[in-house]
Amino acid sequence: MILKKIKSKGLAHLSYFIGSGSYAAVVDPRRDVEVYIDIAREEGMTIEHVFETHRNEDYIIGSRELQERTGCEVHHHEQTEWGYGSDVAEGDSFDLGQLRLDILHTPGHTFDSISVAVYDTDFSKEDAVGVFTGDALFIGDVGRTDFFPDQREHVAGLLYDSLFDKILPLGDQTILYPAHGAGSACGDNMAARAFSTLGYERRHNSMLQKTDRDEFVQHKASEFHHMPMYFERMHAANQEGPELLHDAVGELPRPMKAPEVEQFRQDGGLVLDIRGAEAFGGAHIPGSLNITLPMLSSYIGYQVGFDVPIAPVTYNLAQFEEAWTQLQRIDYLKVEGWLEGGMEEWAINALPFATIPQIFVEEINRRYDEDEEFLLLDVRKRGEAEKGMLQGAQHIFVGELADKLDEVRDTRPIVTFCGTGYRASNAASILLRNGFDRVENFLGSMKACKQAQCPLE
Amino acid sequence: MILKKIKSKGLAHLSYFIGSGSYAAVVDPRRDVEVYIDIAREEGMTIEHVFETHRNEDYIIGSRELQERTGCEVHHHEQTEWGYGSDVAEGDSFDLGQLRLDILHTPGHTFDSISVAVYDTDFSKEDAVGVFTGDALFIGDVGRTDFFPDQREHVAGLLYDSLFDKILPLGDQTILYPAHGAGSACGDNMAARAFSTLGYERRHNSMLQKTDRDEFVQHKASEFHHMPMYFERMHAANQEGPELLHDAVGELPRPMKAPEVEQFRQDGGLVLDIRGAEAFGGAHIPGSLNITLPMLSSYIGYQVGFDVPIAPVTYNLAQFEEAWTQLQRIDYLKVEGWLEGGMEEWAINALPFATIPQIFVEEINRRYDEDEEFLLLDVRKRGEAEKGMLQGAQHIFVGELADKLDEVRDTRPIVTFCGTGYRASNAASILLRNGFDRVENFLGSMKACKQAQCPLE
Amino acid sequence: MILKKIKSKGLAHLSYFIGSGSYAAVVDPRRDVEVYIDIAREEGMTIEHVFETHRNEDYIIGSRELQERTGCEVHHHEQTEWGYGSDVAEGDSFDLGQLRLDILHTPGHTFDSISVAVYDTDFSKEDAVGVFTGDALFIGDVGRTDFFPDQREHVAGLLYDSLFDKILPLGDQTILYPAHGAGSACGDNMAARAFSTLGYERRHNSMLQKTDRDEFVQHKASEFHHMPMYFERMHAANQEGPELLHDAVGELPRPMKAPEVEQFRQDGGLVLDIRGAEAFGGAHIPGSLNITLPMLSSYIGYQVGFDVPIAPVTYNLAQFEEAWTQLQRIDYLKVEGWLEGGMEEWAINALPFATIPQIFVEEINRRYDEDEEFLLLDVRKRGEAEKGMLQGAQHIFVGELADKLDEVRDTRPIVTFCGTGYRASNAASILLRNGFDRVENFLGSMKACKQAQCPLE
Amino acid sequence: MILKKIKSKGLAHLSYFIGSGSYAAVVDPRRDVEVYIDIAREEGMTIEHVFETHRNEDYIIGSRELQERTGCEVHHHEQTEWGYGSDVAEGDSFDLGQLRLDILHTPGHTFDSISVAVYDTDFSKEDAVGVFTGDALFIGDVGRTDFFPDQREHVAGLLYDSLFDKILPLGDQTILYPAHGAGSACGDNMAARAFSTLGYERRHNSMLQKTDRDEFVQHKASEFHHMPMYFERMHAANQEGPELLHDAVGELPRPMKAPEVEQFRQDGGLVLDIRGAEAFGGAHIPGSLNITLPMLSSYIGYQVGFDVPIAPVTYNLAQFEEAWTQLQRIDYLKVEGWLEGGMEEWAINALPFATIPQIFVEEINRRYDEDEEFLLLDVRKRGEAEKGMLQGAQHIFVGELADKLDEVRDTRPIVTFCGTGYRASNAASILLRNGFDRVENFLGSMKACKQAQCPLE
Repeated sequence: MILKKIKSKGLAHLSYFIGSGSYAAVVDPRRDVEVYIDIAREEGMTIEHVFETHRNEDYIIGSRELQERTGCEVHHHEQTEWGYGSDVAEGDSFDLGQLRLDILHTPGHTFDSISVAVYDTDFSKEDAVGVFTGDALFIGDVGRTDFFPDQREHVAGLLYDSLFDKILPLGDQTILYPAHGAGSACGDNMAARAFSTLGYERRHNSMLQKTDRDEFVQHKASEFHHMPMYFERMHAANQEGPELLHDAVGELPRPMKAPEVEQFRQDGGLVLDIRGAEAFGGAHIPGSLNITLPMLSSYIGYQVGFDVPIAPVTYNLAQFEEAWTQLQRIDYLKVEGWLEGGMEEWAINALPFATIPQIFVEEINRRYDEDEEFLLLDVRKRGEAEKGMLQGAQHIFVGELADKLDEVRDTRPIVTFCGTGYRASNAASILLRNGFDRVENFLGSMKACKQAQCPLE
Repeated sequence: MILKKIKSKGLAHLSYFIGSGSYAAVVDPRRDVEVYIDIAREEGMTIEHVFETHRNEDYIIGSRELQERTGCEVHHHEQTEWGYGSDVAEGDSFDLGQLRLDILHTPGHTFDSISVAVYDTDFSKEDAVGVFTGDALFIGDVGRTDFFPDQREHVAGLLYDSLFDKILPLGDQTILYPAHGAGSACGDNMAARAFSTLGYERRHNSMLQKTDRDEFVQHKASEFHHMPMYFERMHAANQEGPELLHDAVGELPRPMKAPEVEQFRQDGGLVLDIRGAEAFGGAHIPGSLNITLPMLSSYIGYQVGFDVPIAPVTYNLAQFEEAWTQLQRIDYLKVEGWLEGGMEEWAINALPFATIPQIFVEEINRRYDEDEEFLLLDVRKRGEAEKGMLQGAQHIFVGELADKLDEVRDTRPIVTFCGTGYRASNAASILLRNGFDRVENFLGSMKACKQAQCPLE
Repeated sequence: MILKKIKSKGLAHLSYFIGSGSYAAVVDPRRDVEVYIDIAREEGMTIEHVFETHRNEDYIIGSRELQERTGCEVHHHEQTEWGYGSDVAEGDSFDLGQLRLDILHTPGHTFDSISVAVYDTDFSKEDAVGVFTGDALFIGDVGRTDFFPDQREHVAGLLYDSLFDKILPLGDQTILYPAHGAGSACGDNMAARAFSTLGYERRHNSMLQKTDRDEFVQHKASEFHHMPMYFERMHAANQEGPELLHDAVGELPRPMKAPEVEQFRQDGGLVLDIRGAEAFGGAHIPGSLNITLPMLSSYIGYQVGFDVPIAPVTYNLAQFEEAWTQLQRIDYLKVEGWLEGGMEEWAINALPFATIPQIFVEEINRRYDEDEEFLLLDVRKRGEAEKGMLQGAQHIFVGELADKLDEVRDTRPIVTFCGTGYRASNAASILLRNGFDRVENFLGSMKACKQAQCPLE
Repeated sequence: MILKKIKSKGLAHLSYFIGSGSYAAVVDPRRDVEVYIDIAREEGMTIEHVFETHRNEDYIIGSRELQERTGCEVHHHEQTEWGYGSDVAEGDSFDLGQLRLDILHTPGHTFDSISVAVYDTDFSKEDAVGVFTGDALFIGDVGRTDFFPDQREHVAGLLYDSLFDKILPLGDQTILYPAHGAGSACGDNMAARAFSTLGYERRHNSMLQKTDRDEFVQHKASEFHHMPMYFERMHAANQEGPELLHDAVGELPRPMKAPEVEQFRQDGGLVLDIRGAEAFGGAHIPGSLNITLPMLSSYIGYQVGFDVPIAPVTYNLAQFEEAWTQLQRIDYLKVEGWLEGGMEEWAINALPFATIPQIFVEEINRRYDEDEEFLLLDVRKRGEAEKGMLQGAQHIFVGELADKLDEVRDTRPIVTFCGTGYRASNAASILLRNGFDRVENFLGSMKACKQAQCPLE
């Protein structure tokens, strides 16, 4: 009986391989499913079942992919009309060697959310040893309930009932296996710790301390989360049954020479620069959008449509491959190629490049001290900004900046600002693409400010 | 905060990498420590501490190896005089990023056994989230207490106190991280399940149901476990501080041509055949000892001295490499080479080979039916034999066979017998090496008998 | 400018990746084309062309596969009507960065054989630096000319002209890149050496010493080569354009439990045992066919139809994966699964197994000395047998044995015999499958005989 | 009989593994010798010999390392007194399975240079099939003869004799295996092509067209090559026998936090930034030296002493690992750690960073057009500069810049210039480290100038 957690970077998505004897199941597989097939081979197991804890909104689920390749069955909750797979409901139960997997209907995050409780029948048919909770319960947090804006209190109440009447009653001894870990957009307060139990959460997850239903509901109903435009598309795709990868895409996109990228750009393609802020600032292709690799999966969905042809600029092939894998997981499939040789190649072709000055924290302090004019544009999430902004700063979330350009104050220069300087560079690139000039990037941003005591509001 | 379990085959040994922020610790590292260093690199962590839960008897601990290569500190309990590392005692505590690790003295398996409780100080300074229990508590079983034969009841009592007064009080919510999993010689009743919590074990581990101290002590004091001769040496080596691998051994041993192996054999070297019973039976080098790879680590310690030069016969290079890694972990370092090209190479050199007939279960039943004379030699562990033997069988544990050859009844042919036929083939090879003839191997053995209804006693 | 040789085991097939600047070509790709795509990525090159030196008969060519995945163009000689790709003819020329590739029509092995000469235009437009010769010229040998039995002298003459009038005139300085190396069925006398030039071959390849056209033709026309039945199918498939792998097959076949294999066998499936002779002899599934892995690709084509469902018995998963890759390359796609757990698993399920005694060379000599009756059945290729057989032996090539069972002399026991004992075990398994009894296998065979001086005829 | 070429990046160093039957030799192994050991294992061969073609000056040879790990013998020419290994001389010969390796004394590049001719004795004892030429003959070029400045004509004459009287007489059919490929500092005119024969070189290597001895000697004696200071140390170390790696260094250096790097810098350590020019220009640690990874091995030897503690700044761990491997090969062993998290980490610690403006080619043309004052500092090799410089440019080779700072003209700003902008960034970092201000980097440099028609002198 093994249980392996598979973590996917970028989205902090967790999926699970669980097996006993010769039989295995996968919970919430990602789209590049080779990893599950490899484990099955090593362990000499056959994947018989896939469980989807809910209709996911933040990545393309790999169920159909895995079904195509292994012949396994796919299960999800009957609440929704799915374009594939088979329905399960509260009380359904599956045997997997000596394991038993029980379905709990645990709505709240979505109406069709399920949890899957795990029993080792050799030891006990009553006490669960673990539970897959999807996006209902995380380590240190609970799921978002803002997907149905007109029913916020209703769904928050559903989540309360799922947590307190279905999941926690499984008992303190139950190991917790959620669908996301720290770094996910699906919850802001997840613990850095990657392992927990229901007993530990019952006592130390702050949301589970809100045992009063009304208090819990009020809290959840008033939470604010940003919503990338791509969530809707993922939701729909996952309901229908996402396209199979080998139908949708082919090989790793081709390397492009600098003149090809120039042509691509003139033809309306998007040059997507995933390098760090300082490299982008040093030299970049005019008009390119900078979303650095570690934030790519989480932030592209706010800014780029699915039909836009994309050509990344990267440090090297390895970095491009990582980006490409992440883009596929969230259905950005129109990657046409990548700039081989990087910016050096671009420059030796005598093609023009742009730069963005990187500003050091002490320069900011100097400007404050000397009362120099500049606009500090804070592009963090609303929740972050509410915890404290720099003096005189304007706040526009980077995910909404392209739509709110006319709100940007007309002070110049504009210094973009975030937690560390990377989302700020994303924002700076958006401004440049839209004709703003005198744009600078505050490398270090809030974290540097904390060390260097910048003036807070 | 990550926690990774590293499983080593053969001994079913479990070690752990735990880290938070930039700092990490390893619990009970094995000798080939590259795996921990690799995880540290990937995670961007520095290994600061090694914890040894006790003076191990079944493998060479990798603490000094890891210390040499990373500069980490090594910790073990003050009870014993160690040749290296630093002492810890009940109540000591270590910070690791936001984690806190508390030392519990949990004697019983050995006097110097410790457990290490894990706290996430961001959430709670009182409630543990996990515990490393070494060989005190396993999933489904508890540790052996037979290492001090003249104090059996005393140490069994110590273990009781450790379990019920130190470990279980950490609370039901605590995840359990033991030093062995199913398949280990350190406990016969471990669960196939690889994950559990104290709460689950408290209710479903049969030994933890024996809450009466006397009953628990009586049960443990009367248990019988076989003891490989190599346990003592591991114990001593681990106390002193095992030799570093790069001092003790060099590269992967060299391939040997068939005539070299013949010479090696004539010079007193041991030809160790790790292929399956049926391949060994089909053709093998006369005088070779057959311990098939999956049982190598667990059974060689009963039969082969540490100073005997060894040359394995294998299917191929990959199998030899796996064997060599396992042998190093338990300090069998005198591997001089391996037969390149295997038995085909041997045969084309016109060197003589021997065979052992493999007997099918229905042939055994026929012999019983027709009352034919033969000796069924059952070489399983005593505990297995006590659960039921075939009619008229003689029992001698394979680990003791070489010392009890004069007890073997003089009926012929001898059909060796075990659970599946692999330890039986080991026994058959011992008999052949010692001049017995008319030796046959019962391929399938007890498992086949259960399907084919052989006559039990 | 790089040139990489890719060797595929089993068939000793050689393919080549050649590139300059950003452009590359592949010559005679195999079906599992990932290897070429990987090199292209590492080198930052785009595969633009595939050249097929001829309509291959011994493996499925990967041209369409590579075309599907990279969009490259596929080229072959206009002589034949192909179902895909584009035609080339003598005199055609392709630029690849600073390289130039010239097409030579070099018929003989087939009518549509081409060679491709390589020029580095930075240095010389007249002198070739290398040449891909397909199956026209090997290191130490020349191609077979027995595919058109009614035109043997005609095609042998074509080959002479291709070699002496087209290839050798490229000059002594030209590096030779053939399509096969030592171990291939496409030529018996290939050098063990893996590198050569036209200058070296001109002086030391024995066939190129036959500068008299008539002598050359006579020699080639009288050569005998065995012809696996699968050659014809490969020929046809390669002409039409072989099916794409992802259309034709899915994932690695599933592990089968022993009872499933038993059922499969009863339903008419072929159990294919790829273990060594001694393991097969030790215990095997009744009715299984033994073709040990290193000879699988070369010998299965004589014995097994393409529509027969196959389930291999192997030492382990790794060995099965290797077998499966090889089978795909030659279009054996009906592999339904493999026996997980191997023969141990079979035996513990109380399923019956068979054995074959392995005979040692001194036992053979004893039988000759004592004039004991037995049939020594020599199953080597005709050419090998002609170089010397054991006294009284009967010769039937293993590839034809199933069709000539009625010719087997009625002396018993039958001792199968080959070069080392592995093809002999293949033959022994064929005899057992067809109801022969008292079959024994001579492990060591001719190579052991040479050492132990068996009586030759 | 196999022959594998192992290419090491950075130095464009080529070493070779050659084997026949069970025996193998390595020619000019690099220091990280795992690669040779791995090939030997795969091929089932034992490495018996190492041949050093000469006392190398551009990397640390791995002979002793390989000897320590495999027990092989090491051979080099008797001319020099070596601290290890055994002497060979013209006419010595070694058998390796069916291969024969003959030693030729081929001085010129060094006095102790040898070539090793390869014969396949199965085919010919007179005609070589290949030859290892070390630094005597390359593809497209011949070796440097400037290591003995007071005997330039003498050694150039020796090289002529070695080439025309020893190597070329082996015959046109001989495959050429030199010690360096394109990109090496050991010859400026090597072909991009990675494969050749003596016949091809005899006709198309421009130096081999100089068949007149005097002409050849004059040409070589007047050649100019830059000489990194580290050449001398390599020479000495390789003569004595370089230290073994596991004595000299330990594990991969540790990750350093930003404040540690700051402390390291203040304590006199060298921060070595191996990122690209545009990233370095965007933000870098004040006082750091920029040598981008692809030029690291070739250029660090001009600028950094062996006893200076080094801490690299990189894009990520993978890039650091590559740098570390390259540094070990040329004996830079004092790498104390690397900046984990890169420049983002630096900035969020509120540590100051510096920038360098990257200049676009059209901006340079504008300055020329408008006659703006600036100093274009050309830091290419002398030979490159002699082929054409920009108007008004000053030339100082980057490898000598630190010693010639007082020669830099006092015009400002200074725009550093090279082939592509990467050595220019190296030069810019040297200027900044030495107190120069108004330093800018011409990204694109000469290659961009060729496209954009900058004014040449």
